[in-house]
Amino acid sequence: MTKGEATRREIIRQAAPIFNQKGFDGAALSDLMRATGLEKGGIYRHFESKQQLAGEAFDYAWKKAVSARLEGVSAIANTVDQLKQIVRNFRDRREGLVAGGCPLLNTAIDADNGNPALRRKAQQALDGWLARLGAVVEEGKRRGEIRAEAAPSEVAAVIIATLEGSLMLERLQHSDVPLDLAVRRLEEFLERDVRAPRTTQNKAIDDA
Amino acid sequence: MTKGEATRREIIRQAAPIFNQKGFDGAALSDLMRATGLEKGGIYRHFESKQQLAGEAFDYAWKKAVSARLEGVSAIANTVDQLKQIVRNFRDRREGLVAGGCPLLNTAIDADNGNPALRRKAQQALDGWLARLGAVVEEGKRRGEIRAEAAPSEVAAVIIATLEGSLMLERLQHSDVPLDLAVRRLEEFLERDVRAPRTTQNKAIDDA
Repeated sequence: MTKGEATRREIIRQAAPIFNQKGFDGAALSDLMRATGLEKGGIYRHFESKQQLAGEAFDYAWKKAVSARLEGVSAIANTVDQLKQIVRNFRDRREGLVAGGCPLLNTAIDADNGNPALRRKAQQALDGWLARLGAVVEEGKRRGEIRAEAAPSEVAAVIIATLEGSLMLERLQHSDVPLDLAVRRLEEFLERDVRAPRTTQNKAIDDA
Repeated sequence: MTKGEATRREIIRQAAPIFNQKGFDGAALSDLMRATGLEKGGIYRHFESKQQLAGEAFDYAWKKAVSARLEGVSAIANTVDQLKQIVRNFRDRREGLVAGGCPLLNTAIDADNGNPALRRKAQQALDGWLARLGAVVEEGKRRGEIRAEAAPSEVAAVIIATLEGSLMLERLQHSDVPLDLAVRRLEEFLERDVRAPRTTQNKAIDDA
């Protein structure tokens, strides 16, 4: 990595919590200068515009969020249990995240009026996240672990909407209760409406 | 109403969609001047600060949202059906709202870092909304329409979190699918987990 590249990455890392907490308009040049220890010219030598810096800061924050939410998932065999782990990770694994909470929720609300480039970033992040959860459901259906009638896109949307909406409540109330409730409700949903009922044959194998 | 009071109200009415769409930092003085047709002095003769104007704009937008969501509810006898109407109103009655979507969601995300006064407004709005839905559940339990084991605060939180989270998806995807799914899931939830099972006695009365 060249020195310029290292500086560029460091600027993104320092700018990410500012954009995630204050939003695009709220992130002042003075905030960015204080966080990076650079002058305006030192920052914008590496980026075409505030827009570009904000976009890369979002990508950085989102990548961290996705990897926290997928922690430990690949070690789990059953697809329904994988989904349950993703749900619990959303609540439990937030130490490694960029400060300011879920970048998808923040950017979706911040950018949906008047910032089409950043809005597109959030939209792509959501689409990718829906596709990722949907793929787990697809795989579960192929394996017979998930009910044949479960629609992958719906299961994914229920999980994401429930968690993000509850996060909004948690942030206003400064309380763990809404996210605990969301996790409990989603676990019930996954057991009751998503997991394939054990067939007599499976049961016979398990019991043997 | 004095002329000053009328002007003050008109400023709030014109400023509300700007704050709701652009957030506190994004709402520029030039936007407010354009919308109201007033100079800076003409606006701030009526308000102590941008903070105060934003707070009153939020109150105005939230009041409209609540009244749209409660439309037709008082004419419904059964409390579970009242909750179902509130859920459907969230999706269906949005014409009268201040432009920019749900002010609670917008302000919660916009104000949770660095704007404590506005954040408190959103928090009070959420608390009031939770209490309002919770009171319907309480009443339903008293009447035997709602299961004895249903926790009013939980039923209220599930409804609000599901709708607000789905609204975030809808706004990013520009699609009706996420809110339609949320309404369908909440209707199932209200029928399956909230409505009291018909007792043999009730059934006997209905059948008579």
